[in-house]
Amino acid sequence: MLTPEKQLAIIKRGASEIIPEKELLKKLEKSCKTNTPLRVKAGFDPTAPDIHLGHTVLLEKMRQFQELGHTVIFLIGDLTGMIGDPTGRSEIRKPLTQEQITANAETYKTQVFKILDPEKTEVRFNSEWLMKLTPIDIIKLQAKQTVARMLEREDFKQRFANQSPISIHEFSYPLFQGYDSVALKSDIELGGTDQRFNLLMGRELQEEFGQEPQVILMMPLLEGLDGVKKMSKSLGNYIGISEEPKDIYGKMMSISDELMIKYYELLSHISLDELNALKEGLKNGNVHPKKAKEELALEIAERYSSKEAALHAKEEFDHVFKDRGRPEEIPVIEIQWDEAEIWLPKIMKLAGLVQSTGEAMRLIKQGGVSVNDTKTDNTDTKLAKAEYIIKAGKRKFAKIKPV
Amino acid sequence: MLTPEKQLAIIKRGASEIIPEKELLKKLEKSCKTNTPLRVKAGFDPTAPDIHLGHTVLLEKMRQFQELGHTVIFLIGDLTGMIGDPTGRSEIRKPLTQEQITANAETYKTQVFKILDPEKTEVRFNSEWLMKLTPIDIIKLQAKQTVARMLEREDFKQRFANQSPISIHEFSYPLFQGYDSVALKSDIELGGTDQRFNLLMGRELQEEFGQEPQVILMMPLLEGLDGVKKMSKSLGNYIGISEEPKDIYGKMMSISDELMIKYYELLSHISLDELNALKEGLKNGNVHPKKAKEELALEIAERYSSKEAALHAKEEFDHVFKDRGRPEEIPVIEIQWDEAEIWLPKIMKLAGLVQSTGEAMRLIKQGGVSVNDTKTDNTDTKLAKAEYIIKAGKRKFAKIKPV
Repeated sequence: MLTPEKQLAIIKRGASEIIPEKELLKKLEKSCKTNTPLRVKAGFDPTAPDIHLGHTVLLEKMRQFQELGHTVIFLIGDLTGMIGDPTGRSEIRKPLTQEQITANAETYKTQVFKILDPEKTEVRFNSEWLMKLTPIDIIKLQAKQTVARMLEREDFKQRFANQSPISIHEFSYPLFQGYDSVALKSDIELGGTDQRFNLLMGRELQEEFGQEPQVILMMPLLEGLDGVKKMSKSLGNYIGISEEPKDIYGKMMSISDELMIKYYELLSHISLDELNALKEGLKNGNVHPKKAKEELALEIAERYSSKEAALHAKEEFDHVFKDRGRPEEIPVIEIQWDEAEIWLPKIMKLAGLVQSTGEAMRLIKQGGVSVNDTKTDNTDTKLAKAEYIIKAGKRKFAKIKPV
Repeated sequence: MLTPEKQLAIIKRGASEIIPEKELLKKLEKSCKTNTPLRVKAGFDPTAPDIHLGHTVLLEKMRQFQELGHTVIFLIGDLTGMIGDPTGRSEIRKPLTQEQITANAETYKTQVFKILDPEKTEVRFNSEWLMKLTPIDIIKLQAKQTVARMLEREDFKQRFANQSPISIHEFSYPLFQGYDSVALKSDIELGGTDQRFNLLMGRELQEEFGQEPQVILMMPLLEGLDGVKKMSKSLGNYIGISEEPKDIYGKMMSISDELMIKYYELLSHISLDELNALKEGLKNGNVHPKKAKEELALEIAERYSSKEAALHAKEEFDHVFKDRGRPEEIPVIEIQWDEAEIWLPKIMKLAGLVQSTGEAMRLIKQGGVSVNDTKTDNTDTKLAKAEYIIKAGKRKFAKIKPV
C-alpha cells in the first residue's frame, strides 16, 4: 500500500476540488493504519447508458482508487428511473420497469468494466434502501434541510428568480442522493463539478445521521473534441467508448495539442511521473505533439478494443491521411480481355486481389469492394473492356489495364 | 330530506366563506336527486385533546350536516402525531406511540360525541392510507405542487421573507392533508379560516387525481370570553366542554351582549328562524339580553352535562350573584346547648340540615360541610357553645344560635 501522501498525489491528479483535502488525508492515514479500504461512492443515471469519454473521467478516477486498494461503489440511481417524470410533462421519461432497469444495468456494467475491475467494484442500486423508507422516514429526512438551503442550488436559485416552476419533489432528489451516502457509509463521493450541491448534501446528511461526513472529490467536465464545450452526445463533440477503433483513433487525432494534455491528465493511464515528463518534453520541444497524440490515440483505442485493433486503426488512419484513401502506388495489372464483359470476381482473382472468385463474392456481399470509388454489392457484376481501379477490402488496390 | 336551497341556508349559517358556493348547491342537488349523502370531511389534531367551545364551532357544523342526512368524517391526523417534531427541536412533540394515539382518539370520541351522532360519524385515521404510500407515490404527490405555490401560504410567505427557516417536510404536510381528501373522496371539507390554504390543497389534489374537487366551507375562529382574541387554552379565555356545569354557566354569563349573538349563531341549536327572531327581539327591545344570555348559558351547560345539572348551575349562579355566596336569609336555628361541646353531626341534624347524623357524616367526608366558611372533613368535630354559620352541601345554610 502506498503512503497516504503518495495516494493523495494520485487522487489529486486532474481533480477540480476536494472538500476538504485535510479530511481526505486523515481518512487515508486512518485507512493505512487500520488496513481498511475507504468506501468510494459515485452515482450514475439509471437511463439507458451510452458512455463516452466524458463519463470515463469519473470512472478513471474510480479505477485509480481501486488500484490504491480502496472499495469502489458504482451506484445506479434506479429509484429516479422507477419514477420517470412525475409531472407527466415528458413523453420520454416514462417510468422504467424493473426489467428495463436490470437490462440497462447490464449494459452499463459491460461498458464500465472496460475501465473498472469487476472484482473490486460494488454495484448497488439505491432502490435497495430508498424503497424501504416509510412516509415517516421520508418526512424526517425532509425535516433535515430547509427550503432556503435548497434554493442555494444554482439551477433552483435561477428558476426561482425567473419564476419558473420548481416542483416540490425536485427538493427530494438531492435529499435521496445524500441519503445514499448515509446508507452506503461512504468515505468519499466522486462527482462532476456540476454535482457540487448534491455532493455536499450527502456530507451534511451523514453528519445529521451521526456519521463521519464523506469527503467530496469533484472532477472537471471533459471538453469535447472542439475543446470548448462539455463533451456531450447532443453536441456531437464526443467519442463513444463503443465506437469503432478507427473512429476513436481518428477523432482522438483531431483534437488540439492543448486539449491533448488535458485528455492525458484525465484519461491516460500513464503514471504521474510519466505525465510530468511528457508535459516537460512538450514544453521544451523534446517530444513532438503529433507523436504524443498518436500514443494517446493508440492507448484510448486499445482500451475499448484491443492492441491489434488499435494498431490496425492507426495504420488505416495513416493510409487515409497520407494518400487520401488510396495507396501512393497502385499496382497496374494487365489483363487479357477477350470477351465483351468479364465477371468482376474473375477480374479480381486475375488481378491477385483475392485467392478465389468465392472469396471475391464474399467480399462483394460484405460491401468491401469498390470499382472506381463506387461500392458494388452485386456479385453478378460484369465489366466492359476498360481501365478500372478496384479496391478490395480496406487496403488492397489494383489498377486494371485490359490488353 | 330538505330541498337543496333549504339545506344551503342551514349550511351557510355562521360560515365565513364557501368555495365555491355554486358547486355546493350543485352537489346538494345531485345528492337529493340520487338520494346519496355527501361526504363531509373535517380533520383534527392527533395530540391529546381538551376540547373547548372554539373547537365545537366546526363540530356543530358537522352535526348540522348529520341532521341534514349527510355522512360526516371525523378525521384524526394521526400520521403527524406519529412523526412528532422531526427537527428534534421540541422536547414536547415526541412521536406518539400507537397506544397513545388510540388512547387520545378515545378521549376525543367521548368528547365529540357529546355533539356528533356516533351512528352517523365515520371516524378515520389518516395513517390508514398515508402509511401505504411508497417513496415513489410520495415523490409523485410532491411533483403535483410547486415551491412557489407553497410559499403563497401566509405563514410560509412571512417566514421566507423574514429568512426564518422552513424545513422541507413542512411542504409535505399540506400535500398529505390534501391527499386525505383524495383517499376519502370527500365532497366537502370543513375548517377554520386559518386552514384556507390547506383546504384548497385538497381541492387541487383531487382534481389532479381525476376526482370532482371538494367544496370548502370555512368557519370563523370563535372569539374567547374577552370578545377579542381567538378562544384558546393558552390565553385562558376559553370554556372547556369538560368543565363543571357551574363554570360553563358562569363563564357564559360573563360574555358581552355582542359576543352572545355570535355564540348563538355558531353554537346554539336553535333554528335559523328562532335565531332571526331572537336577533330581531334584541334589536327592538322585546328580548332582554340577560334573559337571552341565561338561555344560551343553560343550553350550553346542559349540552355538556344534563338538564338538571344545568338548572342547578343556574340556581347556584343566581344565588352567588345575588348574595355573594350565601342565601339572603339564612334561617336562624336555636339549639338547646347543655353541654360544653356538641358533636357537629348532631348539631346539623338538630338544625334540620340533614335527616340523620349518618347523612351528616357522609357529607362531611365528601367535603360538603363548612363551619363559618371553613371546610371541615373531620367527622369527630365537636363545637363549643357559640354562634356558627354551617353550610351543608351546596345550597343549605343554617345560623346556629345556642340557647
